[in-house]
Amino acid sequence: MAQNIYDSENFFKNYIQLPRQVKGLAGTPEWSALKSLLPDPKGTQFLDLGCGFGWVCRWSRENGSVAAHGVDVSEKMLCKARSFPTDSAITYTRADLETFELPPNTYDIAFSSLSFHYLKNLPSLIQQIYKTLTPGGALVFSVEHPVYTAPQDPKVVPGSEYQTIWSLASYLDEGPRISNWLADGVVKQHRTISTYATILLEAGFALAALEEWGPTQEQIKASPHTAFSFLLLKAVKAK
Amino acid sequence: MAQNIYDSENFFKNYIQLPRQVKGLAGTPEWSALKSLLPDPKGTQFLDLGCGFGWVCRWSRENGSVAAHGVDVSEKMLCKARSFPTDSAITYTRADLETFELPPNTYDIAFSSLSFHYLKNLPSLIQQIYKTLTPGGALVFSVEHPVYTAPQDPKVVPGSEYQTIWSLASYLDEGPRISNWLADGVVKQHRTISTYATILLEAGFALAALEEWGPTQEQIKASPHTAFSFLLLKAVKAK
Repeated sequence: MAQNIYDSENFFKNYIQLPRQVKGLAGTPEWSALKSLLPDPKGTQFLDLGCGFGWVCRWSRENGSVAAHGVDVSEKMLCKARSFPTDSAITYTRADLETFELPPNTYDIAFSSLSFHYLKNLPSLIQQIYKTLTPGGALVFSVEHPVYTAPQDPKVVPGSEYQTIWSLASYLDEGPRISNWLADGVVKQHRTISTYATILLEAGFALAALEEWGPTQEQIKASPHTAFSFLLLKAVKAK
Repeated sequence: MAQNIYDSENFFKNYIQLPRQVKGLAGTPEWSALKSLLPDPKGTQFLDLGCGFGWVCRWSRENGSVAAHGVDVSEKMLCKARSFPTDSAITYTRADLETFELPPNTYDIAFSSLSFHYLKNLPSLIQQIYKTLTPGGALVFSVEHPVYTAPQDPKVVPGSEYQTIWSLASYLDEGPRISNWLADGVVKQHRTISTYATILLEAGFALAALEEWGPTQEQIKASPHTAFSFLLLKAVKAK
């Protein structure tokens, strides 16, 4: 199974202080880009993989989803998610996304924010998502931009006052990368943009959008934690 | 119009010494990856945009294309292309790809190798290609990997014996980049991977493949000019 860093005390106590946890979607700078990729949740069955505190499940309900199902490997995250006012149409399951089985032909929208780069066996999950989506259904997800997961030695080399320089020698070498973000020894899986696209195409999806999101200067100033670029993908199952 | 660096004496005299010009496809390390993306040329009308010396037009004819049409902005390149043994089913046109008009519903395969990153107005060409393709037709092309066109200041910063380090601060800032590759002042247009994908999707294409090709250690040893990564894309027009 994938590492469950979120249940480590050290990581969690730092993690819950990030603006995206404190403020939810209002503290998530890439949310407006993700939202514009998401189909209208009205009348849909909504699935959030790596749902964390359940912000997006609740957003889908506020915007008319029939039901929302959040899945997360972290007990601490789900405990916090369940602390919000009860909505019987939102259900949460604690499960490892690497081995979780999804029911066929069930969800209209599958969503995932910044979780898939922790998974070793992503192709198998993407195949499961393809099967669990109804015809015409969509998968929208974000991952850390592969440029950020590429370095084997993830130190940022200071270039000048205005820039940082990354070693990309290992960009095409996929596999685990260990970083010390919020806690020591966080394991992420580095994949190229090409591999993300190919996994989706091989599962049967059509690629509907591929965005490389970056924060504005204002967003970086407001929170140095946002000085990161994400890869956003939208894939659609044929009707 | 796009810069026509190929007709500058200085550039051309260096350019024709590259293995990919001297040896053709056998000296083009990414050719086998591109070839595996290309549909079988048998029985097709084949279009090569930025055809250079015409290697791929001739390859398509050797593999059964009915006719091949090469387009290039460079007189010197076409002059060399025409010096090969005559094949009346291969025609060459000198034209600026930024303004060239393609006939509708004509070609089954459109191809381009390492040309599109010179063009300012790529969306308009891609729309033209979409119209010129027959239903079910495919566009296969390569460009320099955006990681290589990203730096505003394209010096390679030596990292250690085994790696080079690139400044990617300007990755998301698209636009012209000036490099001194083979001659001074070569202008390339930097676009993100996302923009290449989006231009194709917005023109109506389905994305069929997105590959980030890199040379093997053997290929780099054989020719230092190959120590470059390319983005290969395949887009298909619905039947």
